[in-house]
Amino acid sequence: MPVLVMKFGGTSVATLDRIRRAAKRVGVEVAKGYDVIVIVSAMAGKTNELVGWVGETSPLYDAREYDAVVSSGENITAGLMALTLQEMDVPARSWQGWQVPVKTTSAHSSARIEEIPTENITGRFAQGMKVAVVAGFQGVSPEGRITTLGRGGSDTTAVAFAAAFGAERCDIYTDVDGVYTTDPRVESKARKLDRIAFEEMLELASLGAKVLQTRSVELAMRYKVKLRVLSSFEEQSDEAGTLVCGEEEIMESNVVAGIAFSRDEAKMTLVSVADRPGIAASIFGALSDGGVNVDMIVQNIAEEGRTDMTWSCPVDQVKRAKLAMDKASASGVINFSELIADEDVAKVSVVGIGMRSHTGVAAKMFKVLSAEGINIKVITTSEIKISVLIDRKYMELAVQALHDAFELDKVA
Amino acid sequence: MPVLVMKFGGTSVATLDRIRRAAKRVGVEVAKGYDVIVIVSAMAGKTNELVGWVGETSPLYDAREYDAVVSSGENITAGLMALTLQEMDVPARSWQGWQVPVKTTSAHSSARIEEIPTENITGRFAQGMKVAVVAGFQGVSPEGRITTLGRGGSDTTAVAFAAAFGAERCDIYTDVDGVYTTDPRVESKARKLDRIAFEEMLELASLGAKVLQTRSVELAMRYKVKLRVLSSFEEQSDEAGTLVCGEEEIMESNVVAGIAFSRDEAKMTLVSVADRPGIAASIFGALSDGGVNVDMIVQNIAEEGRTDMTWSCPVDQVKRAKLAMDKASASGVINFSELIADEDVAKVSVVGIGMRSHTGVAAKMFKVLSAEGINIKVITTSEIKISVLIDRKYMELAVQALHDAFELDKVA
Repeated sequence: MPVLVMKFGGTSVATLDRIRRAAKRVGVEVAKGYDVIVIVSAMAGKTNELVGWVGETSPLYDAREYDAVVSSGENITAGLMALTLQEMDVPARSWQGWQVPVKTTSAHSSARIEEIPTENITGRFAQGMKVAVVAGFQGVSPEGRITTLGRGGSDTTAVAFAAAFGAERCDIYTDVDGVYTTDPRVESKARKLDRIAFEEMLELASLGAKVLQTRSVELAMRYKVKLRVLSSFEEQSDEAGTLVCGEEEIMESNVVAGIAFSRDEAKMTLVSVADRPGIAASIFGALSDGGVNVDMIVQNIAEEGRTDMTWSCPVDQVKRAKLAMDKASASGVINFSELIADEDVAKVSVVGIGMRSHTGVAAKMFKVLSAEGINIKVITTSEIKISVLIDRKYMELAVQALHDAFELDKVA
Repeated sequence: MPVLVMKFGGTSVATLDRIRRAAKRVGVEVAKGYDVIVIVSAMAGKTNELVGWVGETSPLYDAREYDAVVSSGENITAGLMALTLQEMDVPARSWQGWQVPVKTTSAHSSARIEEIPTENITGRFAQGMKVAVVAGFQGVSPEGRITTLGRGGSDTTAVAFAAAFGAERCDIYTDVDGVYTTDPRVESKARKLDRIAFEEMLELASLGAKVLQTRSVELAMRYKVKLRVLSSFEEQSDEAGTLVCGEEEIMESNVVAGIAFSRDEAKMTLVSVADRPGIAASIFGALSDGGVNVDMIVQNIAEEGRTDMTWSCPVDQVKRAKLAMDKASASGVINFSELIADEDVAKVSVVGIGMRSHTGVAAKMFKVLSAEGINIKVITTSEIKISVLIDRKYMELAVQALHDAFELDKVA
């Protein structure tokens, strides 16, 4: 039998009624002849509650205990989903991460899946089971302790299962009906995309569009897993939602596929750093050790042996970054005059594989922003995206202006 | 190092503050030089919430999925307790049932512990860990699926660990400060017992005193585990609470140790059953298969080949009992004219090992009830207890009158 993976996010299983609705969707696919692997998240709000308890108990928590606590939410949903399917006379059982087992690294709270042996579940399919309900977001370390994959990790679980079982498709059911050209809450003319290339989705995901976890898209791209994002709240046809696929499967597309943004960014500048070969490695090594996720990096031209180094990071990591720089300074690793933090910036990016063959996208972007009187603070580019850092108060305006200028409300 | 087992019930870990208070108690014992195994229940209310979800999802649920869902509550508490201890600089980690592993039978929702290998935890103690926090109430079946031990099963987990690790004592922290001569909510003169014999505790536990789970007491008696019941809400000395121990450790005691009661009983009578050898086995076999927990049994003398059979069971099992009898009748296993259910009865019992050597306890009990105008419907006795079934409305009156008559408010 062909295998289908269906993943239901937290809002899709937030109540027993919603679990029932999700189970009905699963039943439809079973009726079509699929053996289905269902990956479930915790009921909406549950993981936050657990994370809150852990944080309140122990601000600098032992990540192994964090994982043991926080993984409980998915276990509950998995059991309830299996029971709901059984009530509908669909043969089903639940699996916790360690039961499959989903083998991961020992990097607690951000573990990577290393292997998913398929024998157990395949054996049960052969005996007539139609649905394996698997708790998402979790696995087991070589030491036999429970691990989690980091927030949003259930998407990654779903794609990893799709890859391991050679699934025909991996359907990600969520609270939106697909991937949009940008967030409809910011730009009402945002349009749902029928298809989007892995590379584009990857940029959008990592740039702050919260539809899919970045790693799940990476994994899907590597293993060529057809990924579909669709709403669990609407009646679905086979054409519903957005298909994330190889670019060869997309016949025609706009030059720019979408506009992503990330509201809570900070721009930090280390002023007058004593420059020497390896100074960047020293600075960003110290930031990395301090748990700071640096995004954009700009270095001004060095003069008289000193330079300014600028980077962006999530605004809630500014304190950590300051701590890391003070520590590096105290231990003599780096030498600088001042560390400036601008905590009121946002990042806006345009993304599209069409940029590879079309020039002028960057120029157009800068012109549009300039026409709106928006000052650009930092620029970075990749083959298929251009990102700028701007004052946070202009973020919505920038998204709307760019959406208009690139005519994203129209199909190519 | 000597090992101590400390078990905290749901109300003792109901909030993060209470977990902190419990952890402080653990810290006190660690400071005394113990290696401590902490057994935790789910936070008060959590298990009921999970059970409610399962029941709502699937009234006739798959017990394997029930166990997978319902065991989550203890996992959460175990992780939070380990984190709390770590915050207090007490080296601790959590263990879920399958990680120890707590090996049980496959009887889901009412599994029995078969073996608790001690190597893992002992090895960690040898490396300097001071506290192993174990999720109570759960284990793993030979098939690798999660099992639970039935409600109140964390007491059994605690005693089983105390037995397996040769613990010096097993302290059960709960919301009452010990075992009383009867429920103080029914009889204000109820007195806390300093010591009680295993056999007495067993009768009290199985008769409805909710302090300890019956199986935990059985297990403690078999393995001679010293069991102490005490409050997690009071400052504790080494003499606090009630010690449940062998009767040889109790110097003197009242003839009657306590009075137990069970409010929600039903009395059922199968009228005019065709009598034949094996009829009792047929009736009670069918009831057992139907999931009815029969308690007292009375058979009237058979006349002309027919007899009346009376039994008691929890009032919420009356429907099941009726169903089982109808089924047995339809399939010709038994033949009767009528099944009468009296759903307004309660059971009251006096318990004491002193009864073995003192006569007249039963006579006194019946006289006291008669003086209060209370009609006795069914009587059963064992070596150390006498139970009667009476109208539910007289239950409190009966308990108070018996408590007075046997002078349980006074120390022997």
